[in-house]
Parts: sequence; structure tokens; C-alpha cells
Amino acid sequence: MTSADHFQLTGRDGQARTGVLTTPHGQVRTPAFMPVGTAGAMKGMHWREVRDAGTDIVLGNTYHLMLRPGAERIAALGGLQTFTGWNGPMLTDSGGFQVMSLAQLRKVGERAVTFRSHIDGASVELSPERAIEVQRLLGADIAMQLDECVRLPATRADIERAMQLSLRWAERSKRAFETAPAGYLLFGIAQGGDVPELRRASALGLTGIGFHGYAIGGLAVGEPQSVMLAMIEEVVPILPQDRPRYLMGVGTPEDMLEAVARGIDMFDCVMPTRNGRHGMAFTRFGQINLRNARHADDARPLDEESPWPSARGISRAYLHHLVRSGETLGAMLLSEINVAYYQHLMHAIREAVAQGTFESFRERTRAQWAQGDIAAR
Amino acid sequence: MTSADHFQLTGRDGQARTGVLTTPHGQVRTPAFMPVGTAGAMKGMHWREVRDAGTDIVLGNTYHLMLRPGAERIAALGGLQTFTGWNGPMLTDSGGFQVMSLAQLRKVGERAVTFRSHIDGASVELSPERAIEVQRLLGADIAMQLDECVRLPATRADIERAMQLSLRWAERSKRAFETAPAGYLLFGIAQGGDVPELRRASALGLTGIGFHGYAIGGLAVGEPQSVMLAMIEEVVPILPQDRPRYLMGVGTPEDMLEAVARGIDMFDCVMPTRNGRHGMAFTRFGQINLRNARHADDARPLDEESPWPSARGISRAYLHHLVRSGETLGAMLLSEINVAYYQHLMHAIREAVAQGTFESFRERTRAQWAQGDIAAR
Repeated sequence: MTSADHFQLTGRDGQARTGVLTTPHGQVRTPAFMPVGTAGAMKGMHWREVRDAGTDIVLGNTYHLMLRPGAERIAALGGLQTFTGWNGPMLTDSGGFQVMSLAQLRKVGERAVTFRSHIDGASVELSPERAIEVQRLLGADIAMQLDECVRLPATRADIERAMQLSLRWAERSKRAFETAPAGYLLFGIAQGGDVPELRRASALGLTGIGFHGYAIGGLAVGEPQSVMLAMIEEVVPILPQDRPRYLMGVGTPEDMLEAVARGIDMFDCVMPTRNGRHGMAFTRFGQINLRNARHADDARPLDEESPWPSARGISRAYLHHLVRSGETLGAMLLSEINVAYYQHLMHAIREAVAQGTFESFRERTRAQWAQGDIAAR
Repeated sequence: MTSADHFQLTGRDGQARTGVLTTPHGQVRTPAFMPVGTAGAMKGMHWREVRDAGTDIVLGNTYHLMLRPGAERIAALGGLQTFTGWNGPMLTDSGGFQVMSLAQLRKVGERAVTFRSHIDGASVELSPERAIEVQRLLGADIAMQLDECVRLPATRADIERAMQLSLRWAERSKRAFETAPAGYLLFGIAQGGDVPELRRASALGLTGIGFHGYAIGGLAVGEPQSVMLAMIEEVVPILPQDRPRYLMGVGTPEDMLEAVARGIDMFDCVMPTRNGRHGMAFTRFGQINLRNARHADDARPLDEESPWPSARGISRAYLHHLVRSGETLGAMLLSEINVAYYQHLMHAIREAVAQGTFESFRERTRAQWAQGDIAAR
């Protein structure tokens, strides 16, 4: 095992690994799933439920928070952990991805990206230096470099230009982060779209600069899973063993299982909470649509063997009724059930890696998902 | 003290009284506030939070539940308490009020009211007998007679016609309830609009029929508070001392304090949860609008002396941010804060009555509300 001050690898099974990431606000067991609290809140969940579900670390969106309530305001109020009451590790993205997807009149230049806020139309400039400054003001345990993420499909020229710009921004981000207190972490982001050569060049460039951890960005944006996995396989061998690897914006339980099998340590995704708001439950049996009429008279819980109380103690009939009636409680319950399922999966993955049984765990888990819901058999 | 099997009066101070109401699903301390879980859920709250806030009994809406998911379905699933997971006392209204306010093509006849469902347009008939049958299927601890509630202002003739019809429906409701198992309770509803003579006639008629408890309906529908209090003063002296008195759909904290002073024992209202969804907090200092910009940088909690953790442990700045951002968590936190404030007020009222200090409590509480929020001083 190799190790760095902030990241201890504790186990390995094939390419899959377990570790402990140490941050100023606490430790993170890896592989780790980070639920997304976009604007300083987890949609439909109390923070205590996020914690109880087995969450070590959450993600906050720099783009949303810098626009409202504002990074300087959050700093004056003691930082995101004090402001929100989530008193654990927090990673913030750089804002780049949301600028690309949400902002208006976006213009990318060498020095910075300028855009209009989707909230009030105000003109905002985000440079690599400002992205770091904002994340420092927020008090993020883990900050991300500013990058440019192109939508796929894109031409090779466009992908390469954005990847090279992201590398130059990576260097500037690292310089801007030099004044951060010890213990706070900065991750670089490998880009390169679906072009293996560009992915490798990006990863090489980043390791040359040197970061506390390495993310793979610009995936899970609509490409087939096979492309995503192939890109992971290009990048991971280039990254240092003793640094955490974070696959951004991913994904489904199956995506995560396959990415862990290829050496990934960290994930984030809105899927458990977003799908929960749309009546979908993640379970051992795969995804279950509670809106479906077959649940209307079903007194059984989603999964009587679930370790999560709401998944084993609340009837499908009641969840169905809440979803059909548009009751907030339906979204609240399914969000916590889904985050708990994601965290339970991470826990089970860590156990399997520790016991050297990851391969059989992976096969068994995939088989169970494929078998489908007991209520549909 | 007088008493009935199901209702023990335990204290009195002026007209204000304390008691214990016994139902099949547990005991209710009075004066009691019943939060409204319209469609089998409390909007924005988990049932454990409703309970933790100090709630003994909740209200469910027969109209909503009979249309979706259906009374027969809920009965087959074990009744409302099993279906929802709220395993305590529950009162259901008769459906009459919602038929008047929500349903389309409503037609009131001697035998029943017919209407079209606001959900799917289906034609539905609700008679006094069916209203009792539905509430028995739901498993309500306390059922309400079907009544006709007229909007104010209305002519005396309209008010009298609806009041007399409600009295005849009261008799039919009582007959229909005769087969209910022991311990389950039926309340009559006094109508009569804003006409003292009709209010007295209604109350007299109801006591002649005999119920486990008596409600005052058709108030808090837009008339001045003084009219509401005057009608309470007409009705209460006619009602038997040894039966609980329930003021339907009321109200603000001040309404409840004044109604208790006039001998009322039970309340229900959507206000704590509805106002919570709109960014309003009920506190010792009166209602506080968290949307107001003055809270944006205020690290203080709503009330550092509150017994409710979220009211004393979460900053106004964070609540303001959640409300402004439209985050579900804002509605969730303000709903629980408001229900907890209502229940804390009921608790304090019961203590004051027990100690014979209700009058000074009432003056002190009103003075504190009038003084306004500390943040605005």
C-alpha cells in the first residue's frame, strides 16, 4: 500500500480499493458516494437523515452558492458547515459545469468565463483564481479546479481546446490554492471527452502539476456506459496510486459498481434525490416506480431486508398514495430511501473489497438487479 | 369536576379548562391542537416529527381520503393509523366542509350531498350515513357528523336552512354510528353562522341528541375575530360541561388563546404547515416572515430560548436562504417549527390552567406577541 498524508489506502481487490480520506471536518471512507446538496441543502432531507443514511461527505455547488446567498456572506456566517448545519466533510465543485449548463450569455476566455446569472441576470466573471477564492470562502474541505466541460458529441478540435485550457486553468488553480491552510485539499480534473489520447494527455498533465486527488470530468453526459468505462480505463493507470480518484456526476448504482471495479474511489450524483422526487426508489431489486398502479394495494415494504427503516417499515401502498397525491412526504421518504441505498451499496462494496470478495459481490449484485422487483415477478 | 367515560376534566381556571380525552389509539391532553394531515400525510413533516413536536392527535380529511386512495382501500390496509404509520389518535372531519370548498357541481339535498371529485371528475354521493361509514372504514378515533357549512356573509334564511339540515343530519349520523365499537367517538357540529339565536338553537338541538363531544363549525371563515368569539360565548354555556368542545378550523395562536379563555378544548388548523411553506415562522415574538431581507446576514436563531431544536439551533440567515431559494428543507423546517410552537403554546396553556395562572399567562403572552420580533426592534 502506498499512502499520502490525507489518503490512506486500506485494501485492494483487483483494481477496486478501499481507503480513508482525511479532511479538516472529518474522515471519509472510500469508495464514497457524495449526495448533492446543490444550494446548501439536500432536497427533501434533513441533514441528520443524510448523516444517518451513512453519508461521510456531501457536495455543494459553487455556482449556486456564489450567486445566492453569496460566498462572502457564507464566509461571514462561518462557512458552509456552520451555515448549513452539516458539520462534516464537504466538497465543492468549481462552478464550471453549471456555468456551462445553467448560465446565460456564457463566454469562455483564456482568463476567465463570464456569464449572466440564471437567477437575476447579473454579469459574473469566474476565473480559476476566483473559483478557488469562492471555495475557500465557502470553507470546502475539498476544492475543485475550474475546468471547461464540453458537451458530447463534440469535434476532436473542440475537445482538445477545452482540455488544454482546463490544464492551464489547473496550474493557475494550484497556485491560487497555495495559501490554503494545511489539511484542505485541491483536486484536478481530467478532461478529454471520448478521445482516449486526449484523456491520457490530460491525466499526464495533471499529475505533472500535482494534486491531492484527481477527478475525471465530462463523463456521464449522455454517452454510452461503455464509453465512460473505457475512458476510466485510459485515465486510471496514469493517476498516482496514493491519491483518491473521483468520477464526477456518476451515477447509477451499476455505473458506480463498474467504476469501482476500475479503480474509482469517489462519486457524486443528484440521482437518488432527483429520482426520489419523481417517485422512483433504488433497491436491491433495481429501480422501482412507486407511481405504478400495481403498488396501490400492496402492504409490503420496498424491501423487508433493508437496513434502512423507511425502506422496510413503510408500505408500498402508502408510498404509492403519497407519490400519486403529490405529497411532499413521498419525495422526502424516497429521497432518504435512495440515499440510504446508495450508501448501503458503498458500505457493501467496502466490505467486499476488504474481504477480497469484490468480484463475487459484483456478480451477485448485478444478478439481483437484473432479476427485478419481487412485486413484479 | 364532572366527567364522562372518555373525557376527564382535570382542571379549570375561569372558563379555561384542562382535561384528558381517551380514544382507542391513546390519550389526548386538552386543550389540544390537531395538526392537519389532509391526505394521510403532514405536508413537509415526518410523522415522528409531528409526535416529537408534542402532538397527541392529528386530523385527516375524509373528503380527500375517500377520493384517493379510497376508504375501502385504507380499511383493507388496516386503517389510517396502520396505513400512514401515525399510530396515535386521529380525528376525521365528515367531508362536508371540503365538499363545499373544493368539489364541483355540488348539490345539497335532504338525503345527501352530491358532487364531482376535484381529482377525476367522478360523481360522488355523500350522505350522513356514508360519511360515518367512510370514517369507520378509515378507523378514525373521533368521527364528525356530516353538516352543511355556509359561507359568510349569508342571509339569515340560508344560515337557518343549513343549520336545521345539519341538525337532521346530526340525528342520522348518530344512528349510523350506533354499531361502532366501544371507545370510538362521535362529535356533533353546531352551526348557525353569525346569528346568536341560531347558534343557540343548534347547540340545544345537538345536546338533545347527545354526542361524545361538540364542535363549533362554520367559524374562522373570514368573519372578524370578535364575531367568532361572540358565537363561542353563545354556544359554550349550552354545551355539557363533561364533554370536549372543539372549535373547527381555528386558528392563529391568538384565536386559540382567546377561545380557551372561553371554554374551548380542541382546535385544528392548516396554518402552521401552510404558513411554514410560505416562509412564515410562528414564535414567541409573533409571526416572522423569513423572506424578509433583514434576516439575510442574521446568524441568530428564531428564538434562542425555544424548547424546539430547529427554532433555537438554526440561523435566520440559513432559513432565509432556504426560503428564498425555494428549497424544500425551508418548508420542512418551518412546518416543524410552527407545529412545535403551536404545541408548546398548548402545553403552556395547560400548565397555566393547572396552576391557576391562566389570566396572567394570557396577558403576558399577548404582550410578547404585541412587542414583536427581537430582530425588528
